[in-house]
Amino acid sequence: MPSSDAVVDLLGALAYGELSAFGHLADDAGLAPTLAGRAQMSAMAAFEFGHYQCLADRLVELGTAPEIAMAPFVAALETYHSLTKPSTWLESVVKAYVGDGMAADFYREVAALVDDGTAELIRDVLTDAGRAEFAVREVEAAVAEQPAIAGRLALWGRRLVGEALSQTQHVLADRDSLMLLLVEGTGDLTGVAGLISRITDRHAERMTALGLAG
Amino acid sequence: MPSSDAVVDLLGALAYGELSAFGHLADDAGLAPTLAGRAQMSAMAAFEFGHYQCLADRLVELGTAPEIAMAPFVAALETYHSLTKPSTWLESVVKAYVGDGMAADFYREVAALVDDGTAELIRDVLTDAGRAEFAVREVEAAVAEQPAIAGRLALWGRRLVGEALSQTQHVLADRDSLMLLLVEGTGDLTGVAGLISRITDRHAERMTALGLAG
Repeated sequence: MPSSDAVVDLLGALAYGELSAFGHLADDAGLAPTLAGRAQMSAMAAFEFGHYQCLADRLVELGTAPEIAMAPFVAALETYHSLTKPSTWLESVVKAYVGDGMAADFYREVAALVDDGTAELIRDVLTDAGRAEFAVREVEAAVAEQPAIAGRLALWGRRLVGEALSQTQHVLADRDSLMLLLVEGTGDLTGVAGLISRITDRHAERMTALGLAG
Repeated sequence: MPSSDAVVDLLGALAYGELSAFGHLADDAGLAPTLAGRAQMSAMAAFEFGHYQCLADRLVELGTAPEIAMAPFVAALETYHSLTKPSTWLESVVKAYVGDGMAADFYREVAALVDDGTAELIRDVLTDAGRAEFAVREVEAAVAEQPAIAGRLALWGRRLVGEALSQTQHVLADRDSLMLLLVEGTGDLTGVAGLISRITDRHAERMTALGLAG
């Protein structure tokens, strides 16, 4: 069984991930070229906030103030967001789908390593509510009109995965309980490598779904 | 009976008000000095988005695309927000309570002039979900610590009401159906003056609740 420290860390990291995703998606909604696009990106943001609330409630049930549980993860997540700040609407769409999808894959993998109640909560807050269809539609339409965009967006996707892995490593180096959870949960370091390779495979599938080279 | 144009205009203005409130509250959450404050302001933003969704759904039922109904009101609302961009956390808290409260009062007055179904929807989306308690707590704590802030925040409150009235006048001058709704609904221009005076009275009550001079 993972330690309760690891569960609190996991929920805290996930909660801050949702709270910061909320803020960044809400901000990126301002890049939308149409009110309809802005409303859709805002809907994603509001959806993430709902998830944040579920995670914060669970932390309170476990006797930990959400802000205490989240604090250790603020720097890494804000670094990720500042290094991957979208400068165009399409970059924000790709980030909302590809970046958040990658984070979701990671947490889904980790959910398999913790108690059933926590795992169920984690899986509940990771539904993506039609984000894939939205992203595919926006990117396909833009690339059809201006094919040169595809190369730039493919590079952008690689940057997202690179920065996400890099920040995840920083967090794991800093939080022993999470590192132990991963290593013991997956068996050993080979298990961790397998987990990372599954996540990057799914990242490549998402880029392909967008019609972009992974 | 008000024209269906007036109802669509009213719902469009309210919908854009919620969508823009969402974006600005989410943005202002970044000013919070604590993660707890940031989560609370983000919760308000997400709550407004839920209201936006109800209004957008009703517009679709009435056969109007939300983005079409909202378009005439974008400029006035964005002007209001750009002229009242909070530069501190306390300004954002006062704006969330006082500015949005004033808008809610206005829409509640107008709800009395339209059909029951529309009126019910408008009243539903104007609940403020404990915002008053939150604002009073934050402002009281800050003023207790630094009494000089009270004067600046009182001025800020006056600026909010001034800019809100000014932008409302621009919108009414531009949308005949809304102007007619107000004038015919309240009886005559004296009725409109009475409505404005009720709204400014309630604004003063809110400032008093915050311990600030209205």
